[in-house]
Amino acid sequence: MKEKIAVLGPEGTFTEMAARRLFKDAHLVYMDDVEDVFKYVDSGRGMGVVAIENSLEGSVVKNLEALMEHDVKICKEVTLDINLCLMKKKETKKIETILSHQHALAQCKKYLKKKYPKASLQSSDSTAAAMKEASRIKDSAAIGPKEAARKYNLEIIRENIEDDKSQTRFIAIAKKECWGKKTSIIFAVKDEPGALYSVLKVFSDNKVNLTKIESRPSRKKLGEYVFYVDFENNSLIRREFETIMLKIKERTTLLKNLGSY
Amino acid sequence: MKEKIAVLGPEGTFTEMAARRLFKDAHLVYMDDVEDVFKYVDSGRGMGVVAIENSLEGSVVKNLEALMEHDVKICKEVTLDINLCLMKKKETKKIETILSHQHALAQCKKYLKKKYPKASLQSSDSTAAAMKEASRIKDSAAIGPKEAARKYNLEIIRENIEDDKSQTRFIAIAKKECWGKKTSIIFAVKDEPGALYSVLKVFSDNKVNLTKIESRPSRKKLGEYVFYVDFENNSLIRREFETIMLKIKERTTLLKNLGSY
Repeated sequence: MKEKIAVLGPEGTFTEMAARRLFKDAHLVYMDDVEDVFKYVDSGRGMGVVAIENSLEGSVVKNLEALMEHDVKICKEVTLDINLCLMKKKETKKIETILSHQHALAQCKKYLKKKYPKASLQSSDSTAAAMKEASRIKDSAAIGPKEAARKYNLEIIRENIEDDKSQTRFIAIAKKECWGKKTSIIFAVKDEPGALYSVLKVFSDNKVNLTKIESRPSRKKLGEYVFYVDFENNSLIRREFETIMLKIKERTTLLKNLGSY
Repeated sequence: MKEKIAVLGPEGTFTEMAARRLFKDAHLVYMDDVEDVFKYVDSGRGMGVVAIENSLEGSVVKNLEALMEHDVKICKEVTLDINLCLMKKKETKKIETILSHQHALAQCKKYLKKKYPKASLQSSDSTAAAMKEASRIKDSAAIGPKEAARKYNLEIIRENIEDDKSQTRFIAIAKKECWGKKTSIIFAVKDEPGALYSVLKVFSDNKVNLTKIESRPSRKKLGEYVFYVDFENNSLIRREFETIMLKIKERTTLLKNLGSY
C-alpha cells in the first residue's frame, strides 16, 4: 500500500514537489491549510510534508510552533531551490493582474516593478492556487514553479524571475519516531545569564555540532525564551544521545525532541 | 533644526508610527523602499527607522542583512502592538477587493476567509500604499493601522481583525555610534563543535544576559554560520564592554558591532 502524505494543496505547490522528492511513490492528500497537515499527521491518518525555513524569509514561525503543539516527529528533510516562473494562458494578450502566494510576490518584487509596474498583484493561498485562478481570470498571469505550469495549461513567459536566489527546507512529519544523523529540539530556559550557555556546554562537551539555533520569546511565559536547535548526532550511539538529552532536560524548563532524521 | 528621519512611505505605515514614537519632533522623509532608508542613513543625510522582527513572522531577514552591509548603527528601539483594521471609503457599499501589505493579509487570513471568502486579496508595498489605493479603487477595502485611516479619508469597518496578536520591533539607525544598555552584534564562526560555545562562554563568564540569538548560514562562505545576538550590557562599564568585544573577536571569523542603544 502506498504511503499517504498530506501536503498543502491544490496540486502544484513547492511543498508537493518536496513531497515527491522525499517519497518516490506516495499517495498525496491535498489540504486547504498547513495547520490541517499537522492535524492529519497527529491523528495518525498518515504522514505530511511542510516548509520549515527559507534562506531569504527565515523560519516559518507558524510551522515551528505547530511542531511544538502537535504530537508529531520530523523524519526526513529536503532543501529545494525556489525557481519562480511567470506564466499565463496561451490566449492571454495583456497582463493586468499577477497572482501568487505572498512570499513569491515579495521575492519577485523588483522584477515585477520593472516589467509590470501597472499590474495589480493579487495574493493567493499558494502558488498552485494562483496558477489555478490564472487559468480563469481575464488578463492575468501567475507566478509559480515551472513543473506545475502544464498541469494548469499555462505557458511560461519567463523563468527564474526571483530577485535573489533562495532555497526552502521542507520536512516530512510522522506520528512515529525515526532515528537519523540530525536532530531538532525545542527547549526553554530562564531569562538569566549563563542559562543558554549551560545547555550549549552539553553539546560542546560531547563534540556535537549545532547547525541551527534560534531564540524566540515564549508566548506562554513572559521573560522565558524558547530555543529551536538542530544538531548533528551522527557520531553518537543511541545511549550517548539519550544521556545528552537527559543532561539538557536538567538544564531547561521545557524540552521537546522534534525528531532525529 | 528638526532631525531628519527616513521611513518607508507613503504616510501611514507602522514604521512611521514607530518613528513618531521614537522621535517626538522629527521631519520624516518618505522612501519608496526599505533599502533606500539604509542608503539615506549610510550616506550621512539623516537617521532612519526600520522594522527588525515580528513576533509571528520572525526576523526581517533583509533588514538584518542590510545592517551587515551598511555602515550604520542601531541607536534606539521600540516595540509596537500590530493592530490591523479593515477600512473603506464611506460611500463603498460592497467589498470585492481587499488590499494590504502581504504580511498584513497573511495575518488576517482566517478573518478574511470567514467574512469575505469571495474577495480578491491584493498585495501592496505597504499598508499605507493599500489605504491610498483603496481610496481610488472601486468596491475595495484596505487593511492598515487605525491611526492612518483618517489621513486617507477611510472609515473603520472593524478593528483588530488579525488572527493572532503580534508585536513588531523597530529600530532607529544612525551614522554615529550611540551607547546604551543593550547591544546587537553579528558574528561568524567556523562550522565545528564548540565554536559557538566558546563565544557564549565570554558572555557567561561576564554574567552578560543574551536576549536574542539567531543563526543563519552565511551567504558568502559555505559551511560558515552567521549569528545575530542581542545582549544586555547595562552592568558593564565601557572598558569591560570593549574587553568582551575583543575576546569575541578572537573567537570569531567575523564580528560587527551593530550598535548599543
